[in-house]
Amino acid sequence: MMTSETVPLCEGPAHDALAAGRPVVPSRARLKPLGTRDVRLTGGHWGEFQDLNRRAVLPHVEHWVERTGWLGNFDAAREGRLPADRHGREFSDSEVYKLLEAMAWELDRAPDPALEARFHAVVERVAAAQEPDGYLSTRFGRPGQGARWSDLEMGHELYCVGHLVQAAVARARTGHPDDLLVRVARRASDLVCEVFGPAGRVTVDGHPEIESALVELYRVTGERRYLEQARLFVERRGHRVLDEIEFGREYFQDDVPVREARVFRGHAVRAVYLAAGQVDLADETGDDVLLAAVARQWRHTVATRTYITGGMGARHQDEAFAEDFALPPDRAYSETCAGIGSVMLAWRLLLAEGDPAYADLIERTLFNVVSTAPSADGRSFFYTNTLHRRELGAVPAGDEPSPRASSSLRAPWFEVSCCPTNLARTLAGLAAYVATSDDDGVQLHQYAAGTVGQDLPDGRSVRLVVTTEYPADGEVRVRVDSDDDRPWTLSLRVPGWASDGATLTVGGTTRPVGPGTVAERRSWRCGDEVVLRLPMQPRFTHPDPRIDAVRGCVAVERGPLVLAVESVDVPGLDTVDHLRVDPAVPPRVVDGRVVVRCTRVVPPEPGWPYRGEPASVGTDEFEDVPLVPYHEWANRGPSTMRIWLPAV
Amino acid sequence: MMTSETVPLCEGPAHDALAAGRPVVPSRARLKPLGTRDVRLTGGHWGEFQDLNRRAVLPHVEHWVERTGWLGNFDAAREGRLPADRHGREFSDSEVYKLLEAMAWELDRAPDPALEARFHAVVERVAAAQEPDGYLSTRFGRPGQGARWSDLEMGHELYCVGHLVQAAVARARTGHPDDLLVRVARRASDLVCEVFGPAGRVTVDGHPEIESALVELYRVTGERRYLEQARLFVERRGHRVLDEIEFGREYFQDDVPVREARVFRGHAVRAVYLAAGQVDLADETGDDVLLAAVARQWRHTVATRTYITGGMGARHQDEAFAEDFALPPDRAYSETCAGIGSVMLAWRLLLAEGDPAYADLIERTLFNVVSTAPSADGRSFFYTNTLHRRELGAVPAGDEPSPRASSSLRAPWFEVSCCPTNLARTLAGLAAYVATSDDDGVQLHQYAAGTVGQDLPDGRSVRLVVTTEYPADGEVRVRVDSDDDRPWTLSLRVPGWASDGATLTVGGTTRPVGPGTVAERRSWRCGDEVVLRLPMQPRFTHPDPRIDAVRGCVAVERGPLVLAVESVDVPGLDTVDHLRVDPAVPPRVVDGRVVVRCTRVVPPEPGWPYRGEPASVGTDEFEDVPLVPYHEWANRGPSTMRIWLPAV
Repeated sequence: MMTSETVPLCEGPAHDALAAGRPVVPSRARLKPLGTRDVRLTGGHWGEFQDLNRRAVLPHVEHWVERTGWLGNFDAAREGRLPADRHGREFSDSEVYKLLEAMAWELDRAPDPALEARFHAVVERVAAAQEPDGYLSTRFGRPGQGARWSDLEMGHELYCVGHLVQAAVARARTGHPDDLLVRVARRASDLVCEVFGPAGRVTVDGHPEIESALVELYRVTGERRYLEQARLFVERRGHRVLDEIEFGREYFQDDVPVREARVFRGHAVRAVYLAAGQVDLADETGDDVLLAAVARQWRHTVATRTYITGGMGARHQDEAFAEDFALPPDRAYSETCAGIGSVMLAWRLLLAEGDPAYADLIERTLFNVVSTAPSADGRSFFYTNTLHRRELGAVPAGDEPSPRASSSLRAPWFEVSCCPTNLARTLAGLAAYVATSDDDGVQLHQYAAGTVGQDLPDGRSVRLVVTTEYPADGEVRVRVDSDDDRPWTLSLRVPGWASDGATLTVGGTTRPVGPGTVAERRSWRCGDEVVLRLPMQPRFTHPDPRIDAVRGCVAVERGPLVLAVESVDVPGLDTVDHLRVDPAVPPRVVDGRVVVRCTRVVPPEPGWPYRGEPASVGTDEFEDVPLVPYHEWANRGPSTMRIWLPAV
Repeated sequence: MMTSETVPLCEGPAHDALAAGRPVVPSRARLKPLGTRDVRLTGGHWGEFQDLNRRAVLPHVEHWVERTGWLGNFDAAREGRLPADRHGREFSDSEVYKLLEAMAWELDRAPDPALEARFHAVVERVAAAQEPDGYLSTRFGRPGQGARWSDLEMGHELYCVGHLVQAAVARARTGHPDDLLVRVARRASDLVCEVFGPAGRVTVDGHPEIESALVELYRVTGERRYLEQARLFVERRGHRVLDEIEFGREYFQDDVPVREARVFRGHAVRAVYLAAGQVDLADETGDDVLLAAVARQWRHTVATRTYITGGMGARHQDEAFAEDFALPPDRAYSETCAGIGSVMLAWRLLLAEGDPAYADLIERTLFNVVSTAPSADGRSFFYTNTLHRRELGAVPAGDEPSPRASSSLRAPWFEVSCCPTNLARTLAGLAAYVATSDDDGVQLHQYAAGTVGQDLPDGRSVRLVVTTEYPADGEVRVRVDSDDDRPWTLSLRVPGWASDGATLTVGGTTRPVGPGTVAERRSWRCGDEVVLRLPMQPRFTHPDPRIDAVRGCVAVERGPLVLAVESVDVPGLDTVDHLRVDPAVPPRVVDGRVVVRCTRVVPPEPGWPYRGEPASVGTDEFEDVPLVPYHEWANRGPSTMRIWLPAV
């Protein structure tokens, strides 16, 4: 059983004030992250999402991990009632850990004694299930259960330890480096290092996650054995150390060593979690070849295997990436967790390389995958985020967990419920993705109303107030709220989509700016203002001609938002599949809503659907059809929906 | 254990000479089937396929059911070595039964003492595993195994009995009504009737199959309890008698009663097998409402959920039908067994209603799904029949069963190996799908070189010799080889695709004919000849505009054959995805090969694949690209392939 003995903490390479409030703290990266204590979101889209998370998502998740017995599994372990009383799938422990991580970030963002007490209560129940040698799992290791580490392919044992460690890292980085949770995670990690270390079993977990977690635990503690263990797990993978499964070793990225891989492949969440850990490792070991390999695979994946929403992973059967350019909108999997993992990965690459393309994908994915998953009330969730719904579907029952994945509408909980807890921890730490610093200044990557504060290494002080209604409006005002005679550089990202009409106003002078990074170096005074104006007129977007599934279609985007047509907005049609858009008439804003000019297809006579002549596809009657931001869809009852609209 | 006691056979309603050699013998149908003794295929596409089946497929299947231990399971049962020595999945018994069915038809087509001896040897091994009360399964019912009938959702227990019965029906209808196999099947069926009868358990099997088998066993034996049991199984289904599974009750058609269903849905093989049994039941009970319901669902399915190849079932995850018009060519499942089941169903509907549309789909499916599955040497098979292969893929290893489904190329055997045995029994009985009779004559539905002979009820004799190279050539010569003063009607199907240019020549007079049935009634004399000439110029085919996945594409067909482009025929390209066809230039025949005029797309620069302007998609350099019949693809090593070609 866990005792309250104190495990002494070493000072890690990044275990200083800079680490506070940061999920990721690389030692060598080009950009340094700001933390949740340095960036405060005060309103707007993301501020409201953080409030929703606090108010609705977190209590909802707490309720369901208790109700399903997934938290109770730890009590059952303590009381010797396993496996008889175990509930949930093999990875259910990880949902409790992700809840703890969410609580930890949230407690730092806005302290609250009641939430603090609930956090401690969960930690105590978890800790009480840990065995004397540090082993912690409610699923393996007891009589009647599989032996420890006996199903590395699909058992998720090390994956669960990884999430335990990430929760502990969050707790350590929010002012509690000696917390019970941290000690539990260290003891569990120490055992992992013993069992799988240089003299131990030469294998890996079927679901990557522990790689990144161990690097971060090294950063928190300075214990090199954690870093070394992460390195072993990264380097072993790809050498066919796991058993073959029906989906092939590609499913868990054990098909090809990381340096030889061409592109992300297999199970999408596994692929992006693994790549995130590889970037973490490359940073700490100075392994530029490894970093370059991941960056190359990222570029190939973004160019050929990523949805317009930023979503990754097309296949339902194995929740996996499909081949290049195989991106069906109607059978899109685009798992919420793959979106979150993609944000985690792109953030690490951004820190490492500074390329604004990474921040572009983060923005796209946050607005169009992460924002799409929760319902407006924060109490139901999409597990998958399809880009096209053909049938009205039904509202899932609220009293039982839904079979995973492709429920018609958002469901309160799933039998595999990784996404709600992943959302909760991501939203709680969201401010950390907004800005970075380097030796000469501060970089704003995402635009949200709030404040940014950072002291540079030489003592120059930077304080910013960001005022914006973005993405409802394209104007972003950045007011300097600090005085310093010494100049520093303020950098702003101009999104890749803003290729036409963006301007920057500094000191009363306005100039056009294009996609990429714009930097202004000067001695900033309190009250100085920089205004970035981004072009918010809605626009048509065309797919690469190799994407078969959306040939002949256009999408409509506005700013960072992908838009969609929903049948509840189209009188007289249950299906939006009959609409055909006129690409000669650009989308425009009418009464505050984006509309496109459409006709309706006249369906051919029923019968064999393949004929000698092409069918005529529209009438000459046109109408304005309103669109909604994709992330808002399915909040008004069952509907059909499309992002990609066939053109006449 | 099985004894050699004789179970007395009743004379069934159709247990007469007419039943001989016929897989399906309805009592009331509009058209009466001819049997494998009445129709002989003497060469050409189908004659060669039957030879291939005899020469290669059957020995190959015999080898693999032995090698995998699936046949040995029956020995292990007899010797008390189960479950320790059991091999294969829960439905492996059925592969042995399908092999027996194939052997039974084949022995009738071309008797052979060696094959007969092998048939008997297998039957003896199967029979020895039957328990005293008739129960027969190597998977359930012993200590250490699941209890009998304990997993009706996924256990396939009644499904296996169904295939046992179909094998027995084949044996009974080929001159051996008292065969040991028939007695074994009757005893197994009797037990099913006891356990699941009117006073028994109110449920069904998760995989339909026994419904059709029991109707046919009734037709063979006259035992009404078999018919009544089939009726119970059909009527119970759809009332949620099975437990919910992850894929939903739609997966096994237990979501909606048959009379209320709109379309085939769920697992495609299950759906079409069930519908076949429903037509059989409707025939015997005179239930026109049931028949009309199935026919209505068939029409909807053919109009909205069927590939141009005739393939059914788009989804990989649950091997299921997708929504209307969701027919992705690159993620097409189109399972071989679903194609076979679709032929079985359409044949029953054709007999019941006489509509040539059913024979049209049979032709399309036989040439473009059933013919596609086996390799040219008959020793490897496609489990799924995709319409688009994006990557070259690899040749599956020949020494181990492949993980099911989507192997890159045809594989010798699968862990789930339903398709090779299903092909073997279908090809052995293929002649039965060629022709029918009614009180006034004979109908030819499929065109293959061979002979047809049938005496009509009033004694008029019909003998035909069909000479044709179809589908290599469009001329079908039907020579009458019998004399009778009394007139009778010869009917010929003009395929639905032959809408332009078909002619019929009778008595030296040629006239244009269109799709449907053409009938000639006269007093035929020996030597009279009818010549049907079908238009064989290759043609473009356009998809319904609601099929999103192939928007902007054309296919090329020639006669009943769907054509495809294969990368091995396109110098300098590993992928055929770069080709763009000029739809203004019709496909044409050059040096015996069909070619289309194509340009090659110039891929955009790598990067984010969604842009503000449409990419240009071709150069102005055109070339003739040769096509192959789809069913011949992947016989020349790894290649990429498309049926649907994007148009410039």
